[in-house]
Amino acid sequence: MRTLSGVQSSGKLHIGNYYGAIRQFVAMQDQGEALFFIANYHALNSVRDAAAAKQLTFETAVSYLALGLDPSKAVLFRQSDIAELAELYWVLGTVVPMSNLERAHSYKDKLAKGQSPDFGLFAYPVLMAADILLYGTDVVPVGKDQVQHLEFARDWATKFNLQYVKGYDPQDPTGAKSKQPGILKLPQARLNEATAVVPGINGEKMSKTYKNTIDLFGPEKEVEKAIKSIKTDSTPPEAPKSLEAPLYQLLKVMAPESEWAEIDRTWREGGQGYGHYKGKLLGYYHAAFDAPRKRYAELCADPAGVEAVLKQGAEKARAYAAPVIAAVRAAVGL
Amino acid sequence: MRTLSGVQSSGKLHIGNYYGAIRQFVAMQDQGEALFFIANYHALNSVRDAAAAKQLTFETAVSYLALGLDPSKAVLFRQSDIAELAELYWVLGTVVPMSNLERAHSYKDKLAKGQSPDFGLFAYPVLMAADILLYGTDVVPVGKDQVQHLEFARDWATKFNLQYVKGYDPQDPTGAKSKQPGILKLPQARLNEATAVVPGINGEKMSKTYKNTIDLFGPEKEVEKAIKSIKTDSTPPEAPKSLEAPLYQLLKVMAPESEWAEIDRTWREGGQGYGHYKGKLLGYYHAAFDAPRKRYAELCADPAGVEAVLKQGAEKARAYAAPVIAAVRAAVGL
Repeated sequence: MRTLSGVQSSGKLHIGNYYGAIRQFVAMQDQGEALFFIANYHALNSVRDAAAAKQLTFETAVSYLALGLDPSKAVLFRQSDIAELAELYWVLGTVVPMSNLERAHSYKDKLAKGQSPDFGLFAYPVLMAADILLYGTDVVPVGKDQVQHLEFARDWATKFNLQYVKGYDPQDPTGAKSKQPGILKLPQARLNEATAVVPGINGEKMSKTYKNTIDLFGPEKEVEKAIKSIKTDSTPPEAPKSLEAPLYQLLKVMAPESEWAEIDRTWREGGQGYGHYKGKLLGYYHAAFDAPRKRYAELCADPAGVEAVLKQGAEKARAYAAPVIAAVRAAVGL
Repeated sequence: MRTLSGVQSSGKLHIGNYYGAIRQFVAMQDQGEALFFIANYHALNSVRDAAAAKQLTFETAVSYLALGLDPSKAVLFRQSDIAELAELYWVLGTVVPMSNLERAHSYKDKLAKGQSPDFGLFAYPVLMAADILLYGTDVVPVGKDQVQHLEFARDWATKFNLQYVKGYDPQDPTGAKSKQPGILKLPQARLNEATAVVPGINGEKMSKTYKNTIDLFGPEKEVEKAIKSIKTDSTPPEAPKSLEAPLYQLLKVMAPESEWAEIDRTWREGGQGYGHYKGKLLGYYHAAFDAPRKRYAELCADPAGVEAVLKQGAEKARAYAAPVIAAVRAAVGL
C-alpha cells in the first residue's frame, strides 16, 4: 500500500494539521510505502515573498521530522523538486471539465475569506490531483474538506484512462478482468472521522487562512494565549455546556482516552468553568508536544542535514513518478 | 533581438499558418535569434490520440524545415521537451487574475465552435504566456486574434515583476533608470497587418478547428478541391465583386506584387468569373509551394534526421530558459 499526504508550507503548522493529517501520516510510515510532500507550489498562492516561502518550507520539513516522520521509513520531499509534477498538471488539465472546478468548494471558500481570485487558486485542485496521481498513490488520508479533491482526482484519473487506455473498464480500474489496467491509479480517501475537522479558537475550522490556530512550534506564551482565547459563551460554571463549543471539540481531540470520560461528563452536567477546561487543554498540549518541540529546536540548528533529507526524498519520489509520467507521455503521444 | 513563434501540432498546416505566421518567422531567422516551437502540449486539447499526436508533431517539424526554416540559424523544438515550461506555467498562474481568463477570446470562441469546456482550453493563455516569457522573448509575430494573448503575457509579466522585483518600475521595465529590471521580459507583438487574418474557404478565419483550410502539404487533388470550393456568391462575371469575398482576400495574400494590380482592377470593375480567379489562385499556390512540397517528401523519408534537429533545438532552447527559470525560482523562493 502506497500512501501520500501533503501540507502547504504557507504558514506555521498548527494542531489542526497534526490531528487532522500529520498524526495519521506518521502512523502510516509503519504500514507500507509512505510519501509526504511539502506543498510549496501550492503555497505560492498565498506566500508571495521568497525568504518567507523558503523559511516556511524549511520549517515544515523540520516540523514533520520533529513530529516523528522517519526518513528511513517514509519519503519526505518538496513538491517543487519533482519536475514531472508540473507536466502532469498540464496534461491532466486537458481532460478536466471546467464545471468540476467551478463547483470546487476550496476555491469558493477561499474567495469568501478574501483571497484574490487568481488562476492558481482556481487551478489548485488540478495540481493536487496531479500530486496524488503522479506517484501511483493507493491511499490518501484526508480531512472532510478534502474529500471533494480526492473525488476529483479519481474522476479525472478515470477520464484520462477512458480516453487513453484502449479497453479500459471503469468498473475494473486495476484491469483484473479486462487486462487493461488504467495508467493513472485511482486513489482511495481514508477519512479519519474522529479528527477530521479540528476547530480553531473562534470555532471555524482551524486554518492558517482564518488566523484561528494553536501553533505546534510557536513561542510558549503565544500557545497559552491562543488557548486562553478559545471562544466561549456566558454559560456559568455550574450549568451544562454546549457540545458544539470549540473548546469541547478540542478537548475531545487532545484528551488522553483515560481522561476523556470524566471531562465529557462534567462538561455535559456542569460544575466546572471554561478556565478549568482551558487549563486541562494546555496540559494536554504540553504532554503531546514538549518532546517534538525540543527536537524541532535541534533540527533548526542543522539546516544542511534537513536539506540532505529533502534531496534524498526527492530522488526516491522521482523513482515513483518516473514510470507513471513515462506511461502518460506515451499514452498521449508526447 | 530574440523572436519566438509557435504553431499547434493539432492538424495539417495550411496556407493560413504560412501567411499568418510561418512566413514572417522564417524571415526572422535572418534578423536575430529566432526560436520556434511546436506546441504539442497545446495540441492535447484537441488531439486525443498518441499516434496522431506524434505524427502531427513530426509533420509540423518537417513542414517548417520544408518551408525554409534553417536549423543552423533558428532554434526549432518541441514544447514538451522543455521541462521548465510547465513549472513556469504553474508559477505564473499564481499571479494571473481569473477575470482575464474569463474574458479571453480564444476560450469563448472555441466553446462556440463546439470544443468541450475543459480546463486545458481555459488555461491555454497561461501556458502560452509561459511559452513566451520562458525564453526572454523580445518579439512575437502574431495574427490579430493573438494580440490579446500577447497583452496577457505582458500584463502577467508586469504583475510578476511588481510582486517579486523590489523597486520594479512598470514604466521602466528594462530597469534603465531604476536599475531594477524585471525578471520576466515584456514581449512586443509584431502584427503583420497585411496578412494578419487569412480567410478560410468558407469566409471564416482559416483554421483547422473550422475545417475550412487549404493545406500546404496535402494531396494535390484535395488542394485543388479546396480552392474550387471557396465560397462565392451569384455575382455574374461581368459585374463588380465584393471586396469582402474570401477569394479576393486570398488572392490579395497570394498574388505576386506584379500581378496584384491587374487582379484587383478586374475584380472591382467586373469582367471575369470566379472560376478565372480560382485558376489564378491555384497557379500562385503551385508557384509558392511546389518546391517546399518536394523538400517535405524528402524530409519525411528521414525521421532520424528530423529527430536530431528537434533534440538539438531543445538543448538550445533550454539554454535560453535556464537563466529565466532560475531567476523565477529564486524570486518566489522555490
